Amino acid sequence: MSDFVKIAVDAMGGDNSPNKIIEGIIHNHKKNKNVFFKIFGIKDKIEEIIDKKIDKNFYEIIHTENFVLSSDSPLEAAKKGKNTSMWLAIESVKKKNADIVISAGNTGALLVIAKLNLNMIQNIDKPALSALWPNKNGMSVVLDLGANIDCSSKNLFDFSIMGAALYTSLYPNEKPNIGLLNIGSEELKGNETIKETFQILNEKKSNNYNFAGYIEGNQIMDGDINVIISDGFTGNIALKTAEGTANFIVRELKKTMSNSIFGKLSAFLNFSNLNKFKKRLDPRLYNGAIFLGLDSPVVKSHGGTDFIGFSNSLDVCNKIVKGNLIEKIKRNI
Amino acid sequence: MSDFVKIAVDAMGGDNSPNKIIEGIIHNHKKNKNVFFKIFGIKDKIEEIIDKKIDKNFYEIIHTENFVLSSDSPLEAAKKGKNTSMWLAIESVKKKNADIVISAGNTGALLVIAKLNLNMIQNIDKPALSALWPNKNGMSVVLDLGANIDCSSKNLFDFSIMGAALYTSLYPNEKPNIGLLNIGSEELKGNETIKETFQILNEKKSNNYNFAGYIEGNQIMDGDINVIISDGFTGNIALKTAEGTANFIVRELKKTMSNSIFGKLSAFLNFSNLNKFKKRLDPRLYNGAIFLGLDSPVVKSHGGTDFIGFSNSLDVCNKIVKGNLIEKIKRNI
Repeated sequence: MSDFVKIAVDAMGGDNSPNKIIEGIIHNHKKNKNVFFKIFGIKDKIEEIIDKKIDKNFYEIIHTENFVLSSDSPLEAAKKGKNTSMWLAIESVKKKNADIVISAGNTGALLVIAKLNLNMIQNIDKPALSALWPNKNGMSVVLDLGANIDCSSKNLFDFSIMGAALYTSLYPNEKPNIGLLNIGSEELKGNETIKETFQILNEKKSNNYNFAGYIEGNQIMDGDINVIISDGFTGNIALKTAEGTANFIVRELKKTMSNSIFGKLSAFLNFSNLNKFKKRLDPRLYNGAIFLGLDSPVVKSHGGTDFIGFSNSLDVCNKIVKGNLIEKIKRNI
Repeated sequence: MSDFVKIAVDAMGGDNSPNKIIEGIIHNHKKNKNVFFKIFGIKDKIEEIIDKKIDKNFYEIIHTENFVLSSDSPLEAAKKGKNTSMWLAIESVKKKNADIVISAGNTGALLVIAKLNLNMIQNIDKPALSALWPNKNGMSVVLDLGANIDCSSKNLFDFSIMGAALYTSLYPNEKPNIGLLNIGSEELKGNETIKETFQILNEKKSNNYNFAGYIEGNQIMDGDINVIISDGFTGNIALKTAEGTANFIVRELKKTMSNSIFGKLSAFLNFSNLNKFKKRLDPRLYNGAIFLGLDSPVVKSHGGTDFIGFSNSLDVCNKIVKGNLIEKIKRNI
């Protein structure tokens, strides 16, 4: 069992839980036989779905009827006590009974309960929320996406180290290019914090990444930069603006395509190509935000994703554990 | 002649100038016969293009061979003296020989030379850069897009007044909804400046706009909010991220569409629908940024647009003058 990656799963978070969570586990198990799932939630409901789909050697259900709601404030969620499925899942990582924890539940609650249970990695002051972002060549890692509104240059430098470690955990053979999100590519532009961070990254050379300078919003998806660093306010607005823009374009495109019989016909003919396009940009591929800075890895799946999206997040968990993410961060900080 | 809108045009800015500028004027003149153009630049070149295309009663060429380059820093541009086409065009607005000035040249230079020549509107501390942004129902006004990295709540409040005035100049029969760009819709989220601005906008009721609270990045294109307020750093990153996302999707779509004979065929069949789609999102429709806060209106056309894009910016100039933008701002500030 020691070669197994042990994933602690909060089965009660997100829309349509625990169904999609358990179906995600079943889907993932078909691809990966090296994962053991510690599943936290209502035992009867979970058993009903998982029973006979996965051999019992690959999972364990820890029963609890208490769980965090998406409408709970982080404080309310924490006050629900130590036997919510979210708390228990995080605690199992703290106790080294699992390697990583994942939840599709309330993001704020997950961050707060994780911070209550887990220690920060030494010399890191603030945890960051990172995610995968599609680009021309594949995916980039972007952080922070909203955990920290105000960031110092030290914070942004820490984010760079953590982002690079995450990237090389996911893509072990690559040396990432790091870029600082700014409003111009000239050294003089941007606020004081960004300019200071530029200086720090420029001076502290590293074998683990290349510092590529500033990156503007319109370059995020060009694919030249693998790790994009920002304070949480800017990063969150960039991420959500990109989501909104993508949704808008796809909606407009559909509307146009179905505007006439002729359009419908050709859209039908083009079905397989459009499907390839949709597949390439499928948000389920980029599902999952990763909390960085705590001494155990914590992954947040999107609450609205389906079982395939959740299964993709389990892949990310798998890669993070096999890539020794936390060790990589500790070595480089 | 008094009913004429007088537009001072810097003919020497942007790619392929003065050709596209003059062709834009010719294109615009076909639609609007109420505009008189004061054109600043190299007389021979301009005359060669405009001659006999427009009756001489509708334009005047003010010759200068000195002009600002796109590679000039704002300081270098200002140091080129008072006879660059950009300076002269701005000066003609200052001297009330024109109602509005437009340039497709160097943005930083335009902002600095405009600030050197024109006064700020009383009680406004910082000018802002605003632009039109497509949404589900039409267009929104977004500001600031990069003129001010650090903004106080007073600045953001001023931007709201100016943005609402711009919106009602462009859409005279509408009362705009104003939203503050933030990372959550709850009152508690965001930095101190944003929370203070929320309070100010909430307390100071106005007949000229409705304050709709916070707006997140993914809601910008939903069309419910007409004026979106942000500091220049965040606004610039949001705008450029949206541009980058749109370019990425359209590029991926094209790639997918032309991947097979079948795809090419159906893309061909769908040509007219795709064209409608492209038309709806044509960046030339949203061309032109508007500097707000100075006591005369200054419009920046995108340097890379073509003559149709430039002609669209001339429409914006026309509406701004007819909508009494500056008076509207002065009345409401």
